[in-house]
Amino acid sequence: MTYCVALKVNRGLVFMSDTRTNAGVDNISVMRKMHTWERPGERVIVLLAAGNLATTQAVISMLDERAKAPSERHSSLLDTPSMFQTARLVGETLREVIRDSGSDNGQESEAKFHASFILGGQIAGGETRLFLIYPEGNFIESSDDTPYFQIGEHKYGRPIIVRAYDPDLTFAEAAKLLMISFDSTVRANLSVGLPLDLQYYEVDSFHLPPSRRFTAEDPYYRRISQGWSDSLRAAFAKLPEPEL
Amino acid sequence: MTYCVALKVNRGLVFMSDTRTNAGVDNISVMRKMHTWERPGERVIVLLAAGNLATTQAVISMLDERAKAPSERHSSLLDTPSMFQTARLVGETLREVIRDSGSDNGQESEAKFHASFILGGQIAGGETRLFLIYPEGNFIESSDDTPYFQIGEHKYGRPIIVRAYDPDLTFAEAAKLLMISFDSTVRANLSVGLPLDLQYYEVDSFHLPPSRRFTAEDPYYRRISQGWSDSLRAAFAKLPEPEL
Repeated sequence: MTYCVALKVNRGLVFMSDTRTNAGVDNISVMRKMHTWERPGERVIVLLAAGNLATTQAVISMLDERAKAPSERHSSLLDTPSMFQTARLVGETLREVIRDSGSDNGQESEAKFHASFILGGQIAGGETRLFLIYPEGNFIESSDDTPYFQIGEHKYGRPIIVRAYDPDLTFAEAAKLLMISFDSTVRANLSVGLPLDLQYYEVDSFHLPPSRRFTAEDPYYRRISQGWSDSLRAAFAKLPEPEL
Repeated sequence: MTYCVALKVNRGLVFMSDTRTNAGVDNISVMRKMHTWERPGERVIVLLAAGNLATTQAVISMLDERAKAPSERHSSLLDTPSMFQTARLVGETLREVIRDSGSDNGQESEAKFHASFILGGQIAGGETRLFLIYPEGNFIESSDDTPYFQIGEHKYGRPIIVRAYDPDLTFAEAAKLLMISFDSTVRANLSVGLPLDLQYYEVDSFHLPPSRRFTAEDPYYRRISQGWSDSLRAAFAKLPEPEL
């Protein structure tokens, strides 16, 4: 499994992903699930991947190769005219990979090679946009009512996002929120693990600051992890008990 | 779906279950998922059910009928010599129901008529015990390391239990903890809904106090639901932000 989240706030986009991949519980490794493409001043594209690792790596490699060597046959991530067309391109590439890796049985191979993506970014002339791309290759866009997307093992870390998300969050506050959401997930589910990758993008900057990686030994991560446990226990103790 | 939890604390057992059943999203109703049997002074048995409603109702009805009219062929919940044998009886009844309702294909009908149970209670001469019964009819018992069980939609409400559970909790504190866990789940998942049923059992009392039902309008539930949101937001605001 995997856990990836992207939040859209007024200032821009904030992405976080874990790095654990596993085939069974005794075959785990660290793998980056956050991929970025940039043409400074013109476009910034961030892609988070969850699901079958062979599928997601193939999709990323194909997008990457075609971006480096564009051809008539395949459009490139760096040439799409809009974020909407970029989402279509990722969806089509995903469909192509699943079709190629599959047996004759469409449904079966779809389930087996299942993958999903979160795509965010901005292309000059357009808005900053955020998409969730389904295993079928179709996709939805975020809105004011649903300003964040999660893929992978999303349930444990959802309650805090639902309650603390605010469109006015700063990047640092949003990073803190994601850190807490990931900490809740990591404690409950073995298939999600540190290090965590963090990336943010500021609206109209058309430039990605360096991404940041938090290991389990990172002093800030440890402080949040311990601090959040303490806060929860303190909050729990302060609420009144029912009369039984 | 459904959400049910049972905690084993030093003082005894605490159970909570939601009451929403649904077949699709436009066919929902309220159904009790907590069932109790009692022979005052001798035994107390509590059963929480999740999964296919036809299966769980059939299991409960068969256990109930056989408890009222015991026969040579079938043992009764009220005659089992120990909680371990009670868990076996529930598991066997579950297997019987799934077998009877199934097609010829064992695996397929198992998945379709899938159900699981949490069983807790005490029989004179034995300890207070808590079991989780799987759809296959086999089961595990709680321990000091795993002193609680959840069935149904368990992920959203798990982080707070993991962090705040303590074997020294009073019944009222345990009820508060479960209420928070249910509130997190209800907010995130449509298939879990109020009212909530609460039952506790005090070690060696061999008697069940009346169970309590909390509706969405219950003043205590509203206070916990609002209070917990406020506490989480306050705790979130107090933690330090990372330097980006």
